[in-house]
Amino acid sequence: VRMAELSQRSGVSIATIKYYLREGLLPAGAVLSATRAEYDEGHLRRLRLIRALVEVGGVPVAGIGAILSQVDDASVPPHDMLGAVQYALGPAADPGRDGDSRDPDRIAAEAEVAGLIDEMGWRITPRAPARELLAAALAALRRTDAAPAGPPLRVYAEAMAALAAVEVSSISSGNRTELAESAIVGMVLYERVLIAVHRLAQEDASAAVFAHG
Amino acid sequence: VRMAELSQRSGVSIATIKYYLREGLLPAGAVLSATRAEYDEGHLRRLRLIRALVEVGGVPVAGIGAILSQVDDASVPPHDMLGAVQYALGPAADPGRDGDSRDPDRIAAEAEVAGLIDEMGWRITPRAPARELLAAALAALRRTDAAPAGPPLRVYAEAMAALAAVEVSSISSGNRTELAESAIVGMVLYERVLIAVHRLAQEDASAAVFAHG
Repeated sequence: VRMAELSQRSGVSIATIKYYLREGLLPAGAVLSATRAEYDEGHLRRLRLIRALVEVGGVPVAGIGAILSQVDDASVPPHDMLGAVQYALGPAADPGRDGDSRDPDRIAAEAEVAGLIDEMGWRITPRAPARELLAAALAALRRTDAAPAGPPLRVYAEAMAALAAVEVSSISSGNRTELAESAIVGMVLYERVLIAVHRLAQEDASAAVFAHG
Repeated sequence: VRMAELSQRSGVSIATIKYYLREGLLPAGAVLSATRAEYDEGHLRRLRLIRALVEVGGVPVAGIGAILSQVDDASVPPHDMLGAVQYALGPAADPGRDGDSRDPDRIAAEAEVAGLIDEMGWRITPRAPARELLAAALAALRRTDAAPAGPPLRVYAEAMAALAAVEVSSISSGNRTELAESAIVGMVLYERVLIAVHRLAQEDASAAVFAHG
């Protein structure tokens, strides 16, 4: 197809497609003449993946090349490719005082994270950003006097394991590009579903505990 | 206590305390002389609440006055006060095309949200931002071809209801200021725990489905 149709079918503007071509994120089309090139279904799939990364995942364009190289490298196993995708998605781990490795609350929190992963038998790489995110939240809970004692970590872990198993098993079984796109959309949007439903559940639980009459 | 000690015990700098006094977020101390004032435990509690809103909740200082007025107004039931707190916490509902009320995906998503709330028997105000957050995520899932079919919404709802019941029941039973502080800390930090544990669970689920050897 020509660029105009590629733009129409992908929902990405011609100016943006040209930008992706210049940045090397989208391979060049087959040259037909000095001013004409032909694009195929591979270009369309690639554009949809880029769009999912940028628009759904909020990944900066500067970070996309590294992910695409994992998608393109057939020697990278699918699980590692999905890890690269997940690790690129926000929220980033908060640096600053949470990163102070001498902070006793932080040290205790990191041990809690390692203990949970071990107890659940989870296969998690040492560089998974979610380790940092969880340790930072647990350290903040430890250092805040007013922190309520919520459910044990294990209760969250078991609930999330059940949800994640269904989420991951429903990811597309297509080619690598389609698998990556499906994973991004699923990881980002189901996380938003989770957060929103959690807030609704908190509001109802508050009604049960605090509302009178 | 004097301002220096108030600063030390609250962990809030003297310059910031003076700013809160000027903005009317912190009531003036008892005047001892033209340059000296005395502060009490109420000031300390109030500072801790402001700090929780700003540092933990990420609420802009401009939005704090409205929350504090709900905390101070004893005629506002605790459940409504907690609602004001929760509704002030991010992420804000995304405006833009998700807000287009004629979008059929959006209309279907809103019906899904209303149906879930009804089915669960949840008590949720019509203005709860989590309704918008959930409808936006569900509409995005509907309009994305590559979206995996995750667990039914009901499965998320039941898992979150169980967690929220324990979370909310562990909120401080102190006075209104302490209740608000405890709720902010709990809502924000347990949401972060939830997100991080969810990501860890997804990584392990991906290992189960996609890793070989």
